[in-house]
Amino acid sequence: MMTIIAERINMTRKSIREKAWARDAEFIRNEVRQQEARGATHIDVNAGADPAKELEDMRWLAEIVSGATELPLSFDSAQTQVLEAGLQVCNRPGTIINSTTAETARLADTLPLVKKYNTGIIALTMNDGGMPETLAGRQTIIDELCARMTAEGIALDRLYIDPLVRPISTNPEQARMTIEGVRYIKAKYPDAHTMVGLSNVSYGLPNRIHVNRAFFVLLVEAGLDGAIIDPTAEGMMGIMAATRAIAGLDEYCMEYITAARDGKQ
Amino acid sequence: MMTIIAERINMTRKSIREKAWARDAEFIRNEVRQQEARGATHIDVNAGADPAKELEDMRWLAEIVSGATELPLSFDSAQTQVLEAGLQVCNRPGTIINSTTAETARLADTLPLVKKYNTGIIALTMNDGGMPETLAGRQTIIDELCARMTAEGIALDRLYIDPLVRPISTNPEQARMTIEGVRYIKAKYPDAHTMVGLSNVSYGLPNRIHVNRAFFVLLVEAGLDGAIIDPTAEGMMGIMAATRAIAGLDEYCMEYITAARDGKQ
Repeated sequence: MMTIIAERINMTRKSIREKAWARDAEFIRNEVRQQEARGATHIDVNAGADPAKELEDMRWLAEIVSGATELPLSFDSAQTQVLEAGLQVCNRPGTIINSTTAETARLADTLPLVKKYNTGIIALTMNDGGMPETLAGRQTIIDELCARMTAEGIALDRLYIDPLVRPISTNPEQARMTIEGVRYIKAKYPDAHTMVGLSNVSYGLPNRIHVNRAFFVLLVEAGLDGAIIDPTAEGMMGIMAATRAIAGLDEYCMEYITAARDGKQ
Repeated sequence: MMTIIAERINMTRKSIREKAWARDAEFIRNEVRQQEARGATHIDVNAGADPAKELEDMRWLAEIVSGATELPLSFDSAQTQVLEAGLQVCNRPGTIINSTTAETARLADTLPLVKKYNTGIIALTMNDGGMPETLAGRQTIIDELCARMTAEGIALDRLYIDPLVRPISTNPEQARMTIEGVRYIKAKYPDAHTMVGLSNVSYGLPNRIHVNRAFFVLLVEAGLDGAIIDPTAEGMMGIMAATRAIAGLDEYCMEYITAARDGKQ
């Protein structure tokens, strides 16, 4: 099974920001329901429109979102206190903090929360040295992250490592490195999960959906088991299920056929 | 560049059969134009609705289709005389015979046409022993085909080898073997082309487009350089171009961006 973190409820998006600031709860609930209907396993909540209001906005969003679904949430903020505010509203089994990096300061901020609330954690492969341009750079940080989590007593199955998706419009080599990063994680740390913010890949290109779909296929075939996506985007959940069937991860295509029957494609 | 053989003008399809038998030339011309507009490089013509009428239907179709486009055609028939009838109407540079196998009788029928009309030829990896279930079985037939073409004086760049797409609903292992077949051909016979009848992969499944798209991505990434598809099917040409960009086959994403601008996605 794939972890699908549904990304639509993000106040950096204008349409969501306006409705959230208008406290339009029904609009937000509808966003939750639509994403759940297409097969989301987590609903991401990002209240980061205005740093001065983010704490209050997160409390309101977490309340509304958690009232509209039984799914665990994923809390997305650069501010530790905002993450904690969300966790205090709703901390179901499977809840994920989105995200940390391997930077010293970010780990010092987020790991205490992960331990206190017993959550999962998404970790991007960047550290105090910045974003690695090479596969070897990503591998070093993956090793650092796994070692640190283990040292902190955080089981690796709570770790979702994101080997950084970069736009192919600037450098197509980066797509290959993300795919190889996924293969490395699954081979060396089978208990850890993989996670990508998929749509970065198509930044700056027209008709982005084609690029997002194609990259999703290559990642899933490489062993990806989680993604932050818009599950309502045309054909994304369908192509994910199709890839799993082609790759032999879905015996007799039963998951694929069930998802089709349930309108999840 | 990919060879895209547009498959819609096929009289085994009811809608085409009815219009062709009604001699509705404008309907057929419109099918040609729509497929060309989406980026087809060849228009396939299959008149195989009724063996007794196939020769006459092929002559009419070849006339109408070739009058509606400057593209080379691909002639699709199990009857040698029908293929020849098509070639007599239109034999532009790049014309392809669709198809032969490595079966003794089929090769004896088709190779003289290939030589006489100097066409390309699609060859399916099956021989007198039937359809191979294994990759090794496909490899043996690929070697046979390339040796035979060379012996006949047919340059390998006129050969389009189809390593057989089988439905994943019956055996997902077969998808892997098709992909590995493509890799084998490109590695061992770089002058030869690869070709697949893509949509077989999704036979028997719901929402087939998702499976067709996903399999297309994996094949293109493996080096596929030709496919028989419906280029008007939603998202097929777009995902092909996207995969080439991700795989680094499209410098600066220029082909992708141009195709988007020209409405080919």
